[in-house]
Amino acid sequence: MQRKDFRAMPCAIARSLERVGEWWSILILRDAFYGLRRFDEFQESLGVAPNILSRRLTRLVQEGLLVRRRYQDRPLRYEYLLSPSGRAFWPVLLSLLIWGNEYFAPEGASVVLMDRESGESVAPVLVDSSSGKPISEVTHALAATPAATLGLKRRLNLVAEA
Amino acid sequence: MQRKDFRAMPCAIARSLERVGEWWSILILRDAFYGLRRFDEFQESLGVAPNILSRRLTRLVQEGLLVRRRYQDRPLRYEYLLSPSGRAFWPVLLSLLIWGNEYFAPEGASVVLMDRESGESVAPVLVDSSSGKPISEVTHALAATPAATLGLKRRLNLVAEA
Repeated sequence: MQRKDFRAMPCAIARSLERVGEWWSILILRDAFYGLRRFDEFQESLGVAPNILSRRLTRLVQEGLLVRRRYQDRPLRYEYLLSPSGRAFWPVLLSLLIWGNEYFAPEGASVVLMDRESGESVAPVLVDSSSGKPISEVTHALAATPAATLGLKRRLNLVAEA
Repeated sequence: MQRKDFRAMPCAIARSLERVGEWWSILILRDAFYGLRRFDEFQESLGVAPNILSRRLTRLVQEGLLVRRRYQDRPLRYEYLLSPSGRAFWPVLLSLLIWGNEYFAPEGASVVLMDRESGESVAPVLVDSSSGKPISEVTHALAATPAATLGLKRRLNLVAEA
């Protein structure tokens, strides 16, 4: 599949994504968080071929991450809004942003997280919601639950032993 | 490109990924966090065609996320280790895991985050590292810095006005 080089985009999320795969869907979600809703807006923002954009939007709607809503009757026009599960993707995008800002923005961050109230830029970290303890690989590990398959348990034991 | 259906895998990360794109590279990183290092281990874990795996590993090394290290001379064999930037991808994987557990694990989570010391399962949240205030879309927004391009500033203004 043809696609443009995300690395040339001025967004740390896009740059992070370039490192790990084929990412139109995530960039569409990102733009939905930026407030874009309409086909033309997504297309202008992403510079993506209409057929690819159309396929990805349809897929995101099928997956339940976006909701398609009619906003005009003649001609018939739809817009795309984040569903609750789409909205819950926000921490993933933030994590990608932080990662991208740290490693793939040699000229400095072009997007940062801001506290709406104070207007200050914010450095987000993951913590344990009950104790407030910062999450790190050293202090925390992924663990299989009884619901895990045997293969998964075997792989996760490698972590526990590490 | 042919690939298997990640949704059938028992891992919330894989299921999340299925929602948003082509993700071998991320699953390779995930497995590297699980402690896998060798070509055969990745291949067994992922069930991916050798040529695709080989291409993705090479790419991850080129991108600096994995480091290739010789572990045997005759025959010559290499293993793949997480670099610092690869290791820093951990919060993204965790965020994907949380999202997947919440939305794409109807039978219950098969992998959870565990505090190594207490052995308790942990619910991670993103907070402001200086104030401890939880990060949410309501209280926080993405903001363009002076380094941002005009197009990016325009898009981000949509958020600020929302």
